[in-house]
Formats: sequence, structure tokens, C-alpha cells
Amino acid sequence: MNLNEIIAKIKPADADVARLARERLDSLTKPQGSLGALEDCAAKFAAARGDVFARIVKPVVLTFAGDHGVAEEGVSAFPQEVTPQMVANFANGGAAINALAKLAGAELKVIDMGVAADLAPFPGRKTDRVIDRKIAFGTANIAKGPAMSREQVTEALSAGAEIALEAVGNGSTIICTGDMGIANTTPSAALYSAFLGIEPKEAIGRGTGVDDEGLVRKEKAVAAALNANRSTIDSGDPLAILAALGGFEIAGICGAILGAASERVAVVIDGFISGAAAVAAFKIKPETMDYCFFSHLSAEAGHKAAMKALGAKPLLDLGLRLGEGTGAVLALNLIEAALAVMNEMATFAEAEVASG
Amino acid sequence: MNLNEIIAKIKPADADVARLARERLDSLTKPQGSLGALEDCAAKFAAARGDVFARIVKPVVLTFAGDHGVAEEGVSAFPQEVTPQMVANFANGGAAINALAKLAGAELKVIDMGVAADLAPFPGRKTDRVIDRKIAFGTANIAKGPAMSREQVTEALSAGAEIALEAVGNGSTIICTGDMGIANTTPSAALYSAFLGIEPKEAIGRGTGVDDEGLVRKEKAVAAALNANRSTIDSGDPLAILAALGGFEIAGICGAILGAASERVAVVIDGFISGAAAVAAFKIKPETMDYCFFSHLSAEAGHKAAMKALGAKPLLDLGLRLGEGTGAVLALNLIEAALAVMNEMATFAEAEVASG
Repeated sequence: MNLNEIIAKIKPADADVARLARERLDSLTKPQGSLGALEDCAAKFAAARGDVFARIVKPVVLTFAGDHGVAEEGVSAFPQEVTPQMVANFANGGAAINALAKLAGAELKVIDMGVAADLAPFPGRKTDRVIDRKIAFGTANIAKGPAMSREQVTEALSAGAEIALEAVGNGSTIICTGDMGIANTTPSAALYSAFLGIEPKEAIGRGTGVDDEGLVRKEKAVAAALNANRSTIDSGDPLAILAALGGFEIAGICGAILGAASERVAVVIDGFISGAAAVAAFKIKPETMDYCFFSHLSAEAGHKAAMKALGAKPLLDLGLRLGEGTGAVLALNLIEAALAVMNEMATFAEAEVASG
Repeated sequence: MNLNEIIAKIKPADADVARLARERLDSLTKPQGSLGALEDCAAKFAAARGDVFARIVKPVVLTFAGDHGVAEEGVSAFPQEVTPQMVANFANGGAAINALAKLAGAELKVIDMGVAADLAPFPGRKTDRVIDRKIAFGTANIAKGPAMSREQVTEALSAGAEIALEAVGNGSTIICTGDMGIANTTPSAALYSAFLGIEPKEAIGRGTGVDDEGLVRKEKAVAAALNANRSTIDSGDPLAILAALGGFEIAGICGAILGAASERVAVVIDGFISGAAAVAAFKIKPETMDYCFFSHLSAEAGHKAAMKALGAKPLLDLGLRLGEGTGAVLALNLIEAALAVMNEMATFAEAEVASG
């Protein structure tokens, strides 16, 4: 199935199941609505899957990695060599996402979409954890022109979708997204600006920890990227905008979201970078949002404005700013909790409790 | 050990371990501080336990139940008979706390501290889940005088401490608190008012769902309780204030917090009611706060002002307003995640990653 077919296959979630799910939640032994966002999660997951009693099966984390030409603008506190070093760390099991995915019972797959270094072979213990889908050794510098060609972004989207569909084929009913890529808060901010009309100054943040001067450089880089790609942005073509301002890993995440949604599989969106990919997916196909769970509000300053513009209410607000999928796998437990409530609680009638 | 000895035994957390924990967190392969509140949790748990690499062992949920004389003021959307019905539901495994504790791998114990009905024998499958420590068939009406006598509050605190110490004796390194008691947001609001100087109007909320008239009755009941117990409140004696305005289950929770802290065991505080018990524990012995993790910001309106006055930053904000310990067991996963990070991640040196 090609990308256009996958996109065409994405349908709205099941409204009847959503209604039945709300009815069941209201019949359970608790004041109506007293489990707040958990109830919203339970109803949304049920509607996405088309089954009031749907559960999480074989959760996976897909962490897409790529490098960015815009790193040369001095927008990151860390050097670009950290991207392949962290991919090796993922392979060896030493990163935060390894620890958190393990706790969540989620399998981690790391996809090299465009790391600016030759990764293979890994010295580590778990090289099968890393999938090679490298499109190029990093994107071009968005401050000077498009990050990717149309062919490249299509390849990245298709690869992401294919990897998500592979997980679905293995039985997964939920996919967590994650990213690794030095400098990737800058293209993400540019995407938020272009897609949601957020000013560059409001869309950026300190990323992994740039100082005040670095922050000024980021704002300039985003503004330059919007200028350099103005005609593409004005075209309103979401794929072209993603190609112009995105990154290989961002497009990979976007493809994974589209692929999962096409199979009515839920997607847990990580933070700032995955959120930018989700906005692109929303622009490509709005119905995609019926399958997306926004896991956390990032400490990255621009994320709040972006989530507000998108109408998304992230589940967690823990001051996280790491990426990798760490926020997404943390939220997995909340969604599991929501489904445990839906599936395991007694109704007022069953428990012979007065319903107020 | 009597209550005074338990209170005397509570010492501050280990500042040296807190420092070592922060050093280790800063050495792990992530930008410093990028895991936000998780890093705070990891350092706090380590300092509480006196061990940088401390883990969660045998988590338990202690859900204390009791009834309230103030229910006669019409402050709850549910009738008082729901308290014993819900205790039976806990015993039978049908409540939200059953589903969520199971997911969290936490054992649930329900303690009848003062339910206004004879509970035994249960028709249910799991009667050993409910512990009988009934002090009376509900408290007196706080709107007219003290809820409990000095003897009763001491008995309730001692019972809570004893039950926590029993869990500690069984190897638990973390205890989640929970409550069940129709009308118990009203005494909790009164405690927040008396202990933290919050106006009754700011301290209350809709509880399980009272209408506008019920909300007015709650405000009046809290104001009446503060008037009826004015001299006790002015005495500044925390035990006397807890006796005057609290409830058997609130005092039980407070005792459990004190008992756990005396053994350097962490306590996850649930929402509005457990928070009021935590404030009482703080007033009795401020060092207790070194062991308390505030799990979530309740949808109950007064909770925000109370947490702010206490200087506490709850981990979750999901619009929960159920009690039972549901928010506490949800937060357990975040604390476990924090400890997984501390214990399982590689350092920059180990992973050969450039540290910026």
C-alpha cells in the first residue's frame, strides 16, 4: 500500500462506540466523570479501536533518529555527534527511553532515518533494536532552503508508516512515538510556526539547554527558515511544508502516525518534536487526531502555545524536555489505567451501590 | 511504640544522599534536569530511604473509611449508606481503586475506621482485604462541635500508624493513602481552612457532585464548623484541631503518614482528603513532608489553594475527584519510572556520549 492509499484509509473513530463507552463509564461505581481525563482516554481509545472493551496489546515505542543541517546555525547545546552516540546508547540499553520503555512493558525500536554518521555495525548487545532506513546523512539547512526534497519526505513518511504497520501486523494496538536528533527543536518550532501561525519567538525554547545567545540564534534560524521557504508555506501543501521545514525523523514519526491511524491503532505522541509531526499529520488528514493521545506538555516553551492552537490537552505536565519517547511511554500507564477502569470496575447495579 | 514515640522518631531525610542522588542524575545520558519532576521524585525518594539506589518494594494502598456527622447538613450528592456499600465494593474488587491498585501491583487494604454501619461479615470474596478498626459509627457533626474526642483522635492516629508499620514490617518501602467517606470533603475543607488560613469559600468544591445549593450548604457547614470549634482552632494544637474538624478516616491517614515517615518509608498522598490528613501531619511534625509525594491536583476546587499554601506540587493533574487512593496509585508508576531512570540509565562516561 502506498502513502496515498494509507492516508485515504484513515477514517474517523467510531462515534457509536464512543457513546456506548461513555454510557458504560457512567454506570460504573464512581460519581460520573470523577476520573476526569482517564475517562476521556478510555472513551477515546474505545472509539479509536471500535470496541468498548478494547485493551492495550503489545505496546511499542518507535524512536526515529535524524540529523539536521540547521545545526550549523549553532542552535543546540550539544554537538551533532551526540545523535549517533545516543542511537548507540539506545542499542545498548543505557538511555532513559530504555529504562522507561522496559518499565512500561513496551518494545523499543529505533529507526535511523537520517543520522549524519554511519551507524553499522553496533558494538552493542541489541543491534536488532536499530532499524536502518537512512535516507541521507542529515537534512539540508532549513535556514537556507528546504530541508528535504519531495521524494525524500515521501520516502520518510512511507518508511514511518511501514514500520508502524509492521508493529500493527505483529498485534500492537498502541504505538508510542519518539525522536532523537540534535537541533531538532528548531525545525519543530518552524513547523509549529508555519502550520499554526505561531510567531518564531513563541514557538522556540531552550531545547537541551542553549544559553540566551543560543536562544537568539534559534529565533533567527526559525525566522530565516520561514523566509527561505515562504512560497512553499504559502502554498498550504502540508507535505511540501513538512519537506521544507521538517526533518527525516519528524517525517518518519508523521508517517508512523498516519500508518497507525489507517489501522485504527492508537498513537501516543511524545513531546515537542513528536507534536510537530502530529500537527503535520493533522494537516495531511484531520481525522488522524481521533487516534492521537498527547502524552505530556513539554518544558520547551513553545509547546504550550502549539498544543493550545491544536486544541490538544496533554495528559502529563512534568517539566520533561528529553524526547526519545520518554513522555509517551510514561503516559502509556495512564491509558492502561483508563482501560482497566473501563474493563474491570463493577457497575452500580452489579455492586448494589446507591447511585446518588 | 506509642504515638508520641512514633512522632519523635520522624527525622529529616538524608541531605547527603539527596546531593549524591542529584550528582548521579546529572551524570546520566540526558541533558541535566531534562526529566523534570521525575528527577525530583528520584532524588526525594533516595533521600527519604537514605539510599541513592533505593527502589519501590511491595507497594500498598491503605484506604481508610469513615462516616461524618456533618452529612446531616446536606453537603453530599450521595447518601451516607454509600460508604458501607463502597467498602463492600472494595472487598469484592469492583471499585476503581481495585482496578488501579492491581495495575500498579499494589496490595489494597481497606480500614473501617468509623463507618456508620455494621460491616461484618462481608458477602464478598476477599473479606481479609478489610480491616476492622472501627472507633465509632461516624463522627459527631463538626458544624455543631468537635468531630471526635481527644481519645478518639489518638486512637485513630495510632491505628493508622500501626497499620502503616505493619506494612513496613512486611517489607513495603512505599505506602499510598486513600479514603472513603460520604461527606468527607467538608471536614477536609474545614481542616484546610483552619490549618492554612484558607477562606471556607476557597476551600470547598463540589465533591462527588453537589449542585449550587449543596455548594452553599457546604460553605455554611465549613463556616459553622470553624465557629463551633473556634477556641480549639485558636489553641494551635494540631491534634486538637484534627479532633475538632477531621474524621476517623482522615485521622487514620494522618497516622499512617506519621508511621511511615518514622520508618523512612515514602507515602504517596492521594487527593483532597488525603491532602488534608497530610497537612495535619505537617502541623504535627513538619519533617513528615520529606517522605510525602503529592500524587495529583484534585478537581475539587479548594485543593489548588491548599497545595499552594503547603508548597506542594502534585505530580498529576487529571481532573480526578474520586478519592479511594486512585490518584496515589496512578502516581506510583511515575515514582517507579523515576527510580528506573536513577538505577538503570548509563552515565555519559559509560556510554561514551559527549556531555555537551
